Amino acid sequence: MNDAREVVVLRYGHRPGRDDRMTTHVGLTARALGADRVIFPDNAGQSAETVRDITDRFGGPFAVELRDDQKAIVRDFDGVVVHLTMYGERVQDVEGEVREAAGLDDATAGGSPPAPRDVLVVVGGEKVPWALYERADFNVGVTNQPHSEVAGLAVFLDRLFDGTELDREWADADRRVVPEATGKTVIDADGEGADGGGADDEGAGGRGDETTDAGN
Amino acid sequence: MNDAREVVVLRYGHRPGRDDRMTTHVGLTARALGADRVIFPDNAGQSAETVRDITDRFGGPFAVELRDDQKAIVRDFDGVVVHLTMYGERVQDVEGEVREAAGLDDATAGGSPPAPRDVLVVVGGEKVPWALYERADFNVGVTNQPHSEVAGLAVFLDRLFDGTELDREWADADRRVVPEATGKTVIDADGEGADGGGADDEGAGGRGDETTDAGN
Repeated sequence: MNDAREVVVLRYGHRPGRDDRMTTHVGLTARALGADRVIFPDNAGQSAETVRDITDRFGGPFAVELRDDQKAIVRDFDGVVVHLTMYGERVQDVEGEVREAAGLDDATAGGSPPAPRDVLVVVGGEKVPWALYERADFNVGVTNQPHSEVAGLAVFLDRLFDGTELDREWADADRRVVPEATGKTVIDADGEGADGGGADDEGAGGRGDETTDAGN
Repeated sequence: MNDAREVVVLRYGHRPGRDDRMTTHVGLTARALGADRVIFPDNAGQSAETVRDITDRFGGPFAVELRDDQKAIVRDFDGVVVHLTMYGERVQDVEGEVREAAGLDDATAGGSPPAPRDVLVVVGGEKVPWALYERADFNVGVTNQPHSEVAGLAVFLDRLFDGTELDREWADADRRVVPEATGKTVIDADGEGADGGGADDEGAGGRGDETTDAGN
């Protein structure tokens, strides 16, 4: 979303079949809420395909990678490593420190603006190794309650970017949704009408079934 | 979360098997992020059981209902109906209006504090009828991009409550996670140590697999 700094989401662990939709939603949430790239385990090819398809249609830039070396990615990451976990420090307590470590707060009192650093946000799937807790610069809990890794990622990114991710623009999109009080209007990205109207089809909570569910 | 007003999340539509985890995550996210109650379609019994189990262990109050009359619930709701959809108005543009309609902003210039009103947040699953777009007081898009109904719900609730949901306290919990920089500590809710330490088990993005995945 920003040339100065890359925000990468790593989905740690994936069980094919069982986790397909959750992993797809992690990827789509990363894209929609301002990350630059998502890394899936190499057995999550179907989810990668879905996220790439959405990016082709609704725009980018957003990269999807399949990698088999998750431990090494975390170990060797040159930047700030944030691990989202219900056991971590409360997001409301540490979000300022995370933003500062990443150089996202340019209003440091009196000093020069901090240098931008890349951020790796690790979202657990299956069991994550204890070494990840030790390696992470921040273990962060979006509440200390069991809920959803997708929800945790969404709230974390919204707070990391302080809401600015909602205003990002999309390049190379085929189509664009026109926000409206009552309607379902999709236009060609060049401005021509492509679809729309009040048909009896779906269009749910910040997503579109016809797209997110493809192949899952 | 607040005696003066009930915030209810309605999961609209559910396909057993295919949607179990998503519906469970909608329910757990509603609970963790400040809603008072979730309503599932009556074919989502397995998800209801999981969310009730988490509430028994990690505390409440939080209610889970199974209902077969989703259209009527929306039609007859006495309060503010918010429908989350990627076709809706941008959340950053309308969140103030929603808060005002619900009486969540008590700082109305010069006037008396607005009366609290209940809020129904509708999260689509399968196809939702066009009538829902017309009935909703607000159709709201957490981005106008396809992503995840769980992510959309999470960001919406965090903004509706302006972050105060993260400080809520839980009654009648068996156990409680102690937030920490590096660790996985769970104590009995009465303060006794119950579990913890650095075992090689999971504990992922704002959730706990051992709990959220039960029965899914």
